[in-house]
Amino acid sequence: VHTHLDTLPDGTFRLPIRVYYEDTDAGGVVYHANYVKFMERARTEWLRSLGWEQDRLAAELGVIFAVRSLGLEFLRPARFNELLVVSAQVTETRGASLRFEQGIWRSGDGTHLAAGQVRVVSLDAENLRPQPIPRSLLTEISP
Amino acid sequence: VHTHLDTLPDGTFRLPIRVYYEDTDAGGVVYHANYVKFMERARTEWLRSLGWEQDRLAAELGVIFAVRSLGLEFLRPARFNELLVVSAQVTETRGASLRFEQGIWRSGDGTHLAAGQVRVVSLDAENLRPQPIPRSLLTEISP
Amino acid sequence: VHTHLDTLPDGTFRLPIRVYYEDTDAGGVVYHANYVKFMERARTEWLRSLGWEQDRLAAELGVIFAVRSLGLEFLRPARFNELLVVSAQVTETRGASLRFEQGIWRSGDGTHLAAGQVRVVSLDAENLRPQPIPRSLLTEISP
Amino acid sequence: VHTHLDTLPDGTFRLPIRVYYEDTDAGGVVYHANYVKFMERARTEWLRSLGWEQDRLAAELGVIFAVRSLGLEFLRPARFNELLVVSAQVTETRGASLRFEQGIWRSGDGTHLAAGQVRVVSLDAENLRPQPIPRSLLTEISP
Repeated sequence: VHTHLDTLPDGTFRLPIRVYYEDTDAGGVVYHANYVKFMERARTEWLRSLGWEQDRLAAELGVIFAVRSLGLEFLRPARFNELLVVSAQVTETRGASLRFEQGIWRSGDGTHLAAGQVRVVSLDAENLRPQPIPRSLLTEISP
Repeated sequence: VHTHLDTLPDGTFRLPIRVYYEDTDAGGVVYHANYVKFMERARTEWLRSLGWEQDRLAAELGVIFAVRSLGLEFLRPARFNELLVVSAQVTETRGASLRFEQGIWRSGDGTHLAAGQVRVVSLDAENLRPQPIPRSLLTEISP
Repeated sequence: VHTHLDTLPDGTFRLPIRVYYEDTDAGGVVYHANYVKFMERARTEWLRSLGWEQDRLAAELGVIFAVRSLGLEFLRPARFNELLVVSAQVTETRGASLRFEQGIWRSGDGTHLAAGQVRVVSLDAENLRPQPIPRSLLTEISP
Repeated sequence: VHTHLDTLPDGTFRLPIRVYYEDTDAGGVVYHANYVKFMERARTEWLRSLGWEQDRLAAELGVIFAVRSLGLEFLRPARFNELLVVSAQVTETRGASLRFEQGIWRSGDGTHLAAGQVRVVSLDAENLRPQPIPRSLLTEISP
């Protein structure tokens, strides 16, 4: 059973991510900008776990998501070949805006490696202007 | 004259960065995590402009820098082939810690694209523990 | 059953890889250099499926692998959010050298997207000189 | 004088590229897939040096370029903070297809680090079908 992929009772989605050479730098640890990628993978898989595929969101509803702001605190380094777990939890929805609280842990011993907050906005796929989150999605994801 | 590379009268270092395909995503704009890379390039070139090469800092003084936290606000998208200017300015130095204020602009018309804050710590290259910023560097960079 | 992750009867290992925004470029397709990353992920997971973790290979046997050459043909573009399957098959082992034949397919309809060949060498982790592939590994992976 | 940026008498364009942390991996050297990015930067700057901006090529002539195949041999590792020089030279033009010979050197001592061959095709920006290279460009770049 892939419990890592399950949404936990508290509504937090968790995605396992393996650290490959491509993710590391000459300091021997995961390059800091790559945590930002990992966090987006977790938000993407969270959305997919609810049945929303972003390519269809764009094609059928004309909606894409863009990151408006992010904050990220690096607590401990992650290393080559480690298995990480990355969480994504919606903490606020308002108009075209979503806020996420995210965390990164080492899978083996549960060490907390990073904590992040991300604000995402819903945009019209054509003109890139803010547009309300589709209601059917909003009702499903409101915290 | 490469004014872009000069440190301006207010002490702000500016680095020109060209947007290549590798930096963009299927939304047609620079992928958000890549701004984090651009900001590190600017900090690195700022340090180099002061005569400090990070490979020698590690080899000779046993010091490496690591990002402890970052905040980033995305104001406008950058697009393929645009020339950007990325700034780096130290706003605080304390013990092993440096704070930077950074900005990203479109070179052509000066549009402000992103604003960031980064906290960097000085670490012992061997054991990765915080270690005071070398005094000779500190006196040079204190705001 | 995760058949995608199984080694097929012909000895070809297959890894599913999801295309995220980070993998695409402004042309709307997967950026070509990222296929090279995908191919390494497949080789890494193939090795893991045989019980060999590369961090332990380095720490316990002092062996790391490095790519010596690669060839890659791009047949069809991969797009955002598609699920790909990436294969890795050893076609030759000799001394310190391994040759792989690799392929990338769209999972949904089996379209062949790319074909690659990679030569990897086994190096001493300290001095980065070629060193014979450990015998216990070699006997297991010889085609 | 930026001789690095000049096209040499033999027609070979050369671009200096600095190795940042983002380019390296936990092996302490430049991650192999990133050479592929460096090679594209050199082709892009070569085209720009001839007065062709790819965003305008797409917008005005409806032409984009895509990599069809590549071969790459890794001779020596590049390390953090080194200055590299990356060359791009057209060796064949035919219909919609361009062939490049490319090399990567360490700037300091001229050590040859990598050698590559890349075939690029000219595509219609709308339907992504091969389309002859615009004649005005072709006459300028034919070897």
